[in-house]
Amino acid sequence: MSQFIVIEGLEGAGKSTVQRHVVAWLEARGLTVMTTREPGGTPLAEKMRALVKEVHDEPLTMEAELLLMYAARVQLVKTRIQPSLAAGTWVVGDRHDLSSQAYQGGGRGLDRHLIDQIKLAVLGNFAPDLTLYLDIDPALGLQRARARGELDRIELEQLDFFERTRARYLELVQADPRIVQLDGSQSPERVRADVIHCLEQHLCIPG
Amino acid sequence: MSQFIVIEGLEGAGKSTVQRHVVAWLEARGLTVMTTREPGGTPLAEKMRALVKEVHDEPLTMEAELLLMYAARVQLVKTRIQPSLAAGTWVVGDRHDLSSQAYQGGGRGLDRHLIDQIKLAVLGNFAPDLTLYLDIDPALGLQRARARGELDRIELEQLDFFERTRARYLELVQADPRIVQLDGSQSPERVRADVIHCLEQHLCIPG
Repeated sequence: MSQFIVIEGLEGAGKSTVQRHVVAWLEARGLTVMTTREPGGTPLAEKMRALVKEVHDEPLTMEAELLLMYAARVQLVKTRIQPSLAAGTWVVGDRHDLSSQAYQGGGRGLDRHLIDQIKLAVLGNFAPDLTLYLDIDPALGLQRARARGELDRIELEQLDFFERTRARYLELVQADPRIVQLDGSQSPERVRADVIHCLEQHLCIPG
Repeated sequence: MSQFIVIEGLEGAGKSTVQRHVVAWLEARGLTVMTTREPGGTPLAEKMRALVKEVHDEPLTMEAELLLMYAARVQLVKTRIQPSLAAGTWVVGDRHDLSSQAYQGGGRGLDRHLIDQIKLAVLGNFAPDLTLYLDIDPALGLQRARARGELDRIELEQLDFFERTRARYLELVQADPRIVQLDGSQSPERVRADVIHCLEQHLCIPG
């Protein structure tokens, strides 16, 4: 049965690279794979992404930001992820619900009960089968992200925002056995080896 | 103390005209008045409005539609309505929360508890001081709206969608003494007289 695997972590943790490793590993086993990114992943959800990512003259309230994130998420889950999983396609996502809990809950400081209520209201208990969380020191991650080019509205936050986001990520990882923590500050080769080891351990699919 | 007055009703019920009557009545009493429309009313909220109003190739899920409505609403309430009320400005809104309860709850059939949870989570117990609900038979309202020009994505729904929306409006009106029902199918003169009578009764401001 196909599964939903999510890559999580701060800016510059190496999510895109790990997403490629996971896709390659699954495809090497003859599986059909679809990738997603959040917020976004459908034409409408990408428009919602633009609203949260662009720098506006008008400050976007924290609550509107949260609701836009969930609007984009439910649109992606219902129109792409769930139909793909039902059709036997594996889905590998760059970010999912854990990001909202870490960024809006930890970074912005929104009440976690509020976030849980919205999540439960629109997504029920839909959740990834496996999440790879790439842990990285925010200063290092942001340095990598800055080297890639211009930063978006969220990436322009101060370091303490990302410290709070990371702290919440680490709490959430502790609480959920379906989330595996990897060290994103290692060399690309070590990260790749850890990813493959994790997939072999958790997915039990013959190579 | 300034108040938040909302005009509600189906397409073609005469909300814009009534909004103008209310503004004129308040301004004639020397009050400062701001008008809003929902979804929308700020540059960012208008972009969210566009996402729910435009006809897209990709179907917008009911849940994403609901969350976009609340994202736009919380953005408007926190950045415009609450600051204006705090500064002594009266606010007269074309639609507010009752619309989501009637359209998404009644029309779309989304669980009302889910809607209440999202509302409570992001807006707490913020609510209009007075709501004028203009009741109209959907067939007549849509006929009027069609005569005005092209219909948007929601106005393109079938008649039974609007019948369910009206039925929920009527239920909600019964349950809340701060909502006054007016007959929107009357002549413009009769509607205006009813609006003025209602304002005189409920607001007790000397003319």
